[in-house]
Amino acid sequence: MDTTEFRKRGKEMVDYIADYFEQLEERQVYPDVEPGYLRPLIPDSAPQEPEGFEDVLKDVERIIMPGVTHWHSPYFFAYFPTASSFPALLADVLSGGLGCIGFSWAASPACTELETVMLDWLGKMINLPEEFLAGKDGEGGGVIQGSASEATLVTLLAARTKTIRRVQSENPELTEADIMSKLVAYASDQFCATLGTTPCCSFDRLLELGPICNKENIWMHIDAAYAGSAFICPEFRHLLNGVEFADSFNFNPHKWLLVNFDCSAMWVKKRSDLTNAFKLDPLYLQHCHQESGLVTDYRHWQIPLGRRFRSLKMWFVFRMYGVKGLQEYIRKHVKLSHEFENLVLQDKRFEICAEVTLGLVCFRLKGSNELNEALLKSINEARKIHLVPCHLREKFVLRFAICSRTVESVHIQFAWKHISELATELLNA
Amino acid sequence: MDTTEFRKRGKEMVDYIADYFEQLEERQVYPDVEPGYLRPLIPDSAPQEPEGFEDVLKDVERIIMPGVTHWHSPYFFAYFPTASSFPALLADVLSGGLGCIGFSWAASPACTELETVMLDWLGKMINLPEEFLAGKDGEGGGVIQGSASEATLVTLLAARTKTIRRVQSENPELTEADIMSKLVAYASDQFCATLGTTPCCSFDRLLELGPICNKENIWMHIDAAYAGSAFICPEFRHLLNGVEFADSFNFNPHKWLLVNFDCSAMWVKKRSDLTNAFKLDPLYLQHCHQESGLVTDYRHWQIPLGRRFRSLKMWFVFRMYGVKGLQEYIRKHVKLSHEFENLVLQDKRFEICAEVTLGLVCFRLKGSNELNEALLKSINEARKIHLVPCHLREKFVLRFAICSRTVESVHIQFAWKHISELATELLNA
Repeated sequence: MDTTEFRKRGKEMVDYIADYFEQLEERQVYPDVEPGYLRPLIPDSAPQEPEGFEDVLKDVERIIMPGVTHWHSPYFFAYFPTASSFPALLADVLSGGLGCIGFSWAASPACTELETVMLDWLGKMINLPEEFLAGKDGEGGGVIQGSASEATLVTLLAARTKTIRRVQSENPELTEADIMSKLVAYASDQFCATLGTTPCCSFDRLLELGPICNKENIWMHIDAAYAGSAFICPEFRHLLNGVEFADSFNFNPHKWLLVNFDCSAMWVKKRSDLTNAFKLDPLYLQHCHQESGLVTDYRHWQIPLGRRFRSLKMWFVFRMYGVKGLQEYIRKHVKLSHEFENLVLQDKRFEICAEVTLGLVCFRLKGSNELNEALLKSINEARKIHLVPCHLREKFVLRFAICSRTVESVHIQFAWKHISELATELLNA
Repeated sequence: MDTTEFRKRGKEMVDYIADYFEQLEERQVYPDVEPGYLRPLIPDSAPQEPEGFEDVLKDVERIIMPGVTHWHSPYFFAYFPTASSFPALLADVLSGGLGCIGFSWAASPACTELETVMLDWLGKMINLPEEFLAGKDGEGGGVIQGSASEATLVTLLAARTKTIRRVQSENPELTEADIMSKLVAYASDQFCATLGTTPCCSFDRLLELGPICNKENIWMHIDAAYAGSAFICPEFRHLLNGVEFADSFNFNPHKWLLVNFDCSAMWVKKRSDLTNAFKLDPLYLQHCHQESGLVTDYRHWQIPLGRRFRSLKMWFVFRMYGVKGLQEYIRKHVKLSHEFENLVLQDKRFEICAEVTLGLVCFRLKGSNELNEALLKSINEARKIHLVPCHLREKFVLRFAICSRTVESVHIQFAWKHISELATELLNA
C-alpha cells in the first residue's frame, strides 16, 4: 500500500468509524456469540499472497462486529467508563504515523518534553501540590503509565529500593536480603490507598492515613484510577485532600477524561526515587544530554523500555475541550447517576447500597442474593443494556456506571424502566 | 466535535500523515533542539475554553515536529527498527474507534478470540512447535504483551509460582518464604536466553541450554525481540532450533514485522502456568463462561488489567502483505545490511565487529575507542543519518541497523559515502 492508497483507505476508515458512532445506538450492546465463535470463521493460517483492504474491511463487519461488546454504546453501564473522544482518536492517528519510541529524551525529544508538560497541566487541573510537578526545575514530575496496575507495581518497586537503602544506611551490617525479608506492604482489601474503589466508588481517609505513613517512613501511594478525573471540578476536589502526604499519586484519564486508553497518569514527589530503582544504561541507549540534569529519560520510570507518543492525545483533548468542557462532561455524568439514583429511591422494592458520589450507583432488590443474581441475569440476557455486579459485605449488588460519552437522560430513563419491568416479571414469576 | 467534523478532521489528519511519509526523506532525521526547548513554546496550563483543530494542527508543525527524531526516515539506522505500515495504521484507527477493553472474554469476545487465532497464525509462520499453539483445545497459546520486558517479567513471575508450588509439594514442611529465599534465576549478560541481542544481534545456543534446563526443572524463557520476525523465512528458521526445550518464547512483531508498536508476541506451552500466577477474580470481572474451559481471559496473562484490541493490526498486516510479502520485506533488509557490510569490508581503515546475520552491522575504525567515539559524534552532529553505538568486549562499536520500511540501496550507498568522508576528515585532522 503506497501513500496514495493510504489516503483513500484512511478516509474510508474514518468514515467507517464515524458511521459506527452514528449507528452505535442501534447495535446490540452485548454480543450473542458463544465461546469459540471466531475460529471457524477465518482460515487456519495466514494467507501466502496479499489480500485487498476491501476484503479485510468486509470481514470486520462479518467476523469482528458480531463479537464486540460496545463499550461506547449509550446502553453500556458496566465496569467503569473507558474514554473515547474524537480529539484523542485524531491524536492517536498522528502518534501512530510518527511512530517514535520515546524511551529516552534523545529518542524523540518532543515525545518526552510534551509528556512532562502535559502531566504538569493535568496536575494543575486537579490542583496537585506543587511538589508533584516537574516545573522548570522541580524534583517531582509526572509520567504516563499503561495502567494503574503498572503504576502500583512501579511505585512498589521504587518504595522497596528506597526503603532498603534507607535501612542499609542506618544499619550497614544488614544485607539486602536481610532487609528484603522483613519488608511489609500495607493495603486495604482494595490495595493501597484508594480514591474511588471499583466495586462501589468508596474513598479511603487520606487525612488519617497520610500522617501515619509520613511518621513511620512508609511510602504512600494513592490510586484514584476512576475518580481522579472528577478532581478537575472544584466541588469534588476535597476528595483528594490529604494527597500532600503521599509519595506518589495515580489516576487514569483513559477512564473518565476523554483521553483514549491507554493513558494512566502518575506523579511522584521525588523522581530520583524512580530512577534509583529502574535505571538501566547500556551504551546504545545513552545520549550526550543524559547526565546534564536537564532531561528526563522515561525508560527509568517504567517497566517497559519502549513507549508511544501518548501525550499527544492529552494535548489534543485538553485544548479541544478546554478545562470548562471537561468539567461539564464530568458534571453531566454525575448528574445522570443521581438521576438514576432517584429513580431507584422512588421504587420501594429496591435499595441503594453505597453513597453515590460520582458516576456509579450500587443498587439491589431488597431480598436474597439469588434474587438479585436472577435480576442481573435477566437484564444481561435481554441485551438491551449491560451491567456487571459486585459484592459489598457479602451482598450481591448491581453496579450501574455512567459510561458512554453520548449517554443522555433518555437512556437513563429507558434503562430504569427496563430494569423495573424485569424486576416485576421476576417478582411475579 | 461531532461525527461530521470528525469526518472532515480525520481525513485532514490522514492527509497530514500521508504528506509526512511522502516528505519524510527531506526532514532532518535527528532534531536540533536542546533540552527544555518545548516548555517555553506552550502555555503554562491547559486552556479554559476550547480551541479549534486547526490551531492544534498548526502547533504540531511549529512545536512538535522540530523535536521529533524521525524513526521512519530512510536515514535512520539507530537502535533497532520499530514497525510502521499503512495496514497497521488503519487497523489502529479501527481499534481506537471500537475502544473496547479486552480484559476478559466477555468484555469483548472478538478482541480475545482474534488475538488467540492471530498468535496461532504467527506461531505457524515461524514454525513454532505445536505445543505453543492454542488450537481448538491445546494447553498452550499466545498473547500480546506491550513489550519484551513485560513478557520477561510475566514469565519470571510465572516461573517463580510454578517452582514454589513444585518444591512445596515435594517438601510440605517448607514455607513459601523458605523456598523464595533460595530461588535463583540464571541469565547471560543480556538476560535470559536471547536470540538476536541488542548490541550485536548474537544468538545463545538453545540446543545446549535447553536440555540442561529441562533436566534441572528450570523454566526456560527465550527472548528474540528483534530477530524473531526473521524466522518467518525458512533460511533463518534454524536460528530458532531448540525452542522445543523452552517453556515460553517471545518476539516483537512491532520491531520488524510491520505491526506498529506495541505488539510483543509471547507464547507458553502451558497456559495454566500463567493463570496460576496471575489469576484475579473480583465479581465485577467474572462472567458465566469463565469456568467453562472454553474461553481465555487475558487479564490472567499479564500485569495490566486493561488491554486494547491489538490483534486487529496483526490481522490487517498479515492479510494485506501476505506471508510472501512479509518474507520479501525481511529479505530486503538483510540484503541491505550485507550491502553495507561489503562496503565496510572494502575499506581497509574499518573492521566488522560481529557476524552479520540479519539487519545489523557492527563496525568501527581500526583504532582507539576515542577515535570511534569521535567518528560517531561527527556522524550524529552532521544530522544526515542517525546511528547509536554499543560496547563489544570493551570496544566502542558503531551499530548500523537497517530500520526504515522505505530504505533502499541508494540510502545505504549515501550513508556509507558520508561515513567514509567523515572518517577521512577525522583521520586527516
